[in-house]
Amino acid sequence: MNVNRLVVCIATVAGLAAALPAAAQFQKPEDAIKYRQSAMALQGNHLGRVFAMTSGNSPFDAKVAAEQIELVALLNRLQFAAFTEGSDKGNTKAKPEIWSQKDKWNAAVAKSQEDVNKLAAVGKTGNADQIKAAVGAVGQSCKGCHDEFRSR
Amino acid sequence: MNVNRLVVCIATVAGLAAALPAAAQFQKPEDAIKYRQSAMALQGNHLGRVFAMTSGNSPFDAKVAAEQIELVALLNRLQFAAFTEGSDKGNTKAKPEIWSQKDKWNAAVAKSQEDVNKLAAVGKTGNADQIKAAVGAVGQSCKGCHDEFRSR
Repeated sequence: MNVNRLVVCIATVAGLAAALPAAAQFQKPEDAIKYRQSAMALQGNHLGRVFAMTSGNSPFDAKVAAEQIELVALLNRLQFAAFTEGSDKGNTKAKPEIWSQKDKWNAAVAKSQEDVNKLAAVGKTGNADQIKAAVGAVGQSCKGCHDEFRSR
Repeated sequence: MNVNRLVVCIATVAGLAAALPAAAQFQKPEDAIKYRQSAMALQGNHLGRVFAMTSGNSPFDAKVAAEQIELVALLNRLQFAAFTEGSDKGNTKAKPEIWSQKDKWNAAVAKSQEDVNKLAAVGKTGNADQIKAAVGAVGQSCKGCHDEFRSR
């Protein structure tokens, strides 16, 4: 099993997923809310497995790390397709600023994707130190966005 | 963008994901519960998009169908890793039979994966009629498993 091939593969999928027409994907606002919450939950799980490895809580395995990182990259793309217009109300902690301050939100999304892309790139190297630094940056990026755009 | 390449790609990812050590993935039973519910929610969304196309509720697009089907295949694999020992209690509708009737459960999982694999195979052909038949079989497979193993 070739990790580089896998990484290229998931990156391809993630790229395509991002190109899907988001508006057509959700019939109701609550569908979009549930979808993004689900994608974030899965993303958190797979990111957590990378954190566990880079923090010494589980043995570091370059192949597993690469797989987990690429699942994170895919889920990260999927989730951002689900902040559709009208999905600011309901069972969601998403702040109205996501829709009222579009530029700021778009910048935060771009930052998240940039950090995840960097993580995906170092994931290919199998270098534990680089992965540790990059996954830390992704964690900060998650936190920054949650602090700004998610209600407590 | 080559659909066949994409399909091979996601199938590779799905295969790897299935090989991940499930037990190591979840620190607490509630993590496994949330994970499988999230994976099923995403799976339902992407399967729903295929259904919408094959039932005439949205225009049929072979490339989009193939993408959606392969996301279904990936998520289907991910979800089944999350029925871990001890995750039968808590915020879950999973029936105890999943753990007490392992053979029956394993057969249902195998049936689901077989039907999803068939869907993934016809997804590559872009043939709307074949996809319609295969997605119908997956729907039946989902329903069969839910009737048997999920509380109302």
